[in-house]
Amino acid sequence: MFIETCIAPVNIALIKYWGKRDEELILPINDSLSVTLSTDEMCAKTTIAASASFKCHIMWLNGEEVPFEENPRTMRCLKEIQRLAIAKGQLKFPIDWKLHIASHNNFPTAAGLASSAAGYACLVKTLAFLYGVDGEELTAIARQGSGSACRSLYGGFVRWHMGNRSDGSDCLALPVAPAEHWPELHIFILVVNDARKKTSSTKGMQFAVETSDLIAHRAKHCVPERIAALIQAIANRDFQKLAEITMRDSNQFHAIALDTYPPCVYMNDVSHAIVEFVHSYNEAAGEIKLAYTFDAGPNACLYVLERDVCAALVAIKSSFPNDEEHSVEYVKGIPVGCEQKESNGFNGNASLHINNKNLLKYIIHTRI
Amino acid sequence: MFIETCIAPVNIALIKYWGKRDEELILPINDSLSVTLSTDEMCAKTTIAASASFKCHIMWLNGEEVPFEENPRTMRCLKEIQRLAIAKGQLKFPIDWKLHIASHNNFPTAAGLASSAAGYACLVKTLAFLYGVDGEELTAIARQGSGSACRSLYGGFVRWHMGNRSDGSDCLALPVAPAEHWPELHIFILVVNDARKKTSSTKGMQFAVETSDLIAHRAKHCVPERIAALIQAIANRDFQKLAEITMRDSNQFHAIALDTYPPCVYMNDVSHAIVEFVHSYNEAAGEIKLAYTFDAGPNACLYVLERDVCAALVAIKSSFPNDEEHSVEYVKGIPVGCEQKESNGFNGNASLHINNKNLLKYIIHTRI
Repeated sequence: MFIETCIAPVNIALIKYWGKRDEELILPINDSLSVTLSTDEMCAKTTIAASASFKCHIMWLNGEEVPFEENPRTMRCLKEIQRLAIAKGQLKFPIDWKLHIASHNNFPTAAGLASSAAGYACLVKTLAFLYGVDGEELTAIARQGSGSACRSLYGGFVRWHMGNRSDGSDCLALPVAPAEHWPELHIFILVVNDARKKTSSTKGMQFAVETSDLIAHRAKHCVPERIAALIQAIANRDFQKLAEITMRDSNQFHAIALDTYPPCVYMNDVSHAIVEFVHSYNEAAGEIKLAYTFDAGPNACLYVLERDVCAALVAIKSSFPNDEEHSVEYVKGIPVGCEQKESNGFNGNASLHINNKNLLKYIIHTRI
Repeated sequence: MFIETCIAPVNIALIKYWGKRDEELILPINDSLSVTLSTDEMCAKTTIAASASFKCHIMWLNGEEVPFEENPRTMRCLKEIQRLAIAKGQLKFPIDWKLHIASHNNFPTAAGLASSAAGYACLVKTLAFLYGVDGEELTAIARQGSGSACRSLYGGFVRWHMGNRSDGSDCLALPVAPAEHWPELHIFILVVNDARKKTSSTKGMQFAVETSDLIAHRAKHCVPERIAALIQAIANRDFQKLAEITMRDSNQFHAIALDTYPPCVYMNDVSHAIVEFVHSYNEAAGEIKLAYTFDAGPNACLYVLERDVCAALVAIKSSFPNDEEHSVEYVKGIPVGCEQKESNGFNGNASLHINNKNLLKYIIHTRI
């Protein structure tokens, strides 16, 4: 029996991937650019065993059996890794040995926190170790599991190039800057209580490409400009610029979802209250201290520099009061060494028009 | 003393006006097209008296004094009407006589139901009667009070042409088809309970023009196509087509608002639940029976053909249950002659993910 275990990180896009030019190969209509989060707080962990005695491929996700042979995406990842291994010609074990795969996320899968990106990245990485292959091409394989998974194979800032070739051979994720370039970048994930069913990302972006009259303009004109400006902002460690581009692109992605017919709505009233909070907070600070971005769900991902973590957390807690706010489980991740009662002169409640309590389930504090 | 009284209707845009090319003259960046509602259920009513004994202009709106001489928009309407009267040369009374103006809406002003459009249309119409002037130019004057007011000077379907001239002389509202062309078109206004403060339309569209990367594409490419297709749909009394264009344009307008920086959010979770309800209802019916449109607020305006009014109302009431639903005040406007318990085979609740009661304040049933 051969056995390998890997972990893979979550990544959060600053410039969003939304829309495929090829559904089969998962080739996007625009470049995207993400931040890979530290694996200390959030990661996927996958163990794969290969054995002559296994009768069929089996996969467990967080302890529950999930389809593997019946899932074209997982099977495509396996076939592609096997193809590389055969081409390389040094097989540790016969290619027809079956696999047992156990994958875990150390964060709630149901919370819609880019779990499929981390999961497929981890699957591909572990398969690659198992079959003894590596290289740039792994991002192309991860991409065929879940588009944004390709960005989770690198740390730091990662750009997923859309490429132009119809076979997808130039559609790769490549690093823009390592995490060490800007270690002060911290992240809060605000997990929002929400009961609504959402259209899946796969369906949502397919409908958007088919029906939105704005998406082509976004992909062709808006995104290329933003990618260039964002790369410059990262090079200069210009938080203000990074923050503004990120917020604008999050809003534009949700605008495209809304321009879809029928419309796809991923943010809810609480999400919009967080947006309002961030803009009010920045206005009170006289500069951009916080930036939000929302994926295809209601949870917010906030970027903040390390020096502002404490003040921002106090403001978040005061604007979104929670019965659990003194519980150690309410703020997960990197401990924040500041007193809850510490004042930062921002009266968050005044700017909010939703006044229920417990709008957030919990907060994760992590970093690049 | 001279005295005149007029009423003016509310209009609801099918293709939305959002964005000015000239803030001063209120010249829009795209054509818009609206339906004027019957004045039987909703209208503004304005009485203006002119007298040698009045010391200054005074205006009351719904019984409360509001600025008139201090309001550049009301004063501009007055000056323009006076200019026409002087040009015509038959003054009934000296031009420097002061006015007392009393205006009422027979529907809640606070509900955000296009009250300024009806109000300014009524002001201009009454001033025109008082000073003995008329003609196409009145729409240009009403426009300078509140952009969409120009569309309330005609019944039926009205197109507000953006024009090209910088002085606005070709920026006029003109009728597309009278109400008699399609009298079967009925309207439900669903007034949503909401506490959030919104950015005013004036500010919202100004910020959109300044910051949205999508609005120019909408104005230049999407709207002209939609206007042409909608005029065709109206000519053919093609409800399916009218409904789809209307829903798409409502969504696109809110997409542009969301693409504004900072974003403007006018719809709330209840609004989106109404959108979901309409799409589910149409899907269950196998054809489009209901169409929604949302202005710069959370309230829905639903279009429905007369023959489907009863079934639609039953479905609305079952999907949005309300403690007041048996009260005569809950469904205002044209009486609906059908039993509440009448079934139409649509189980609205099943499709809704918000299950609170009393999400609607009340419903107005009216028609073209």
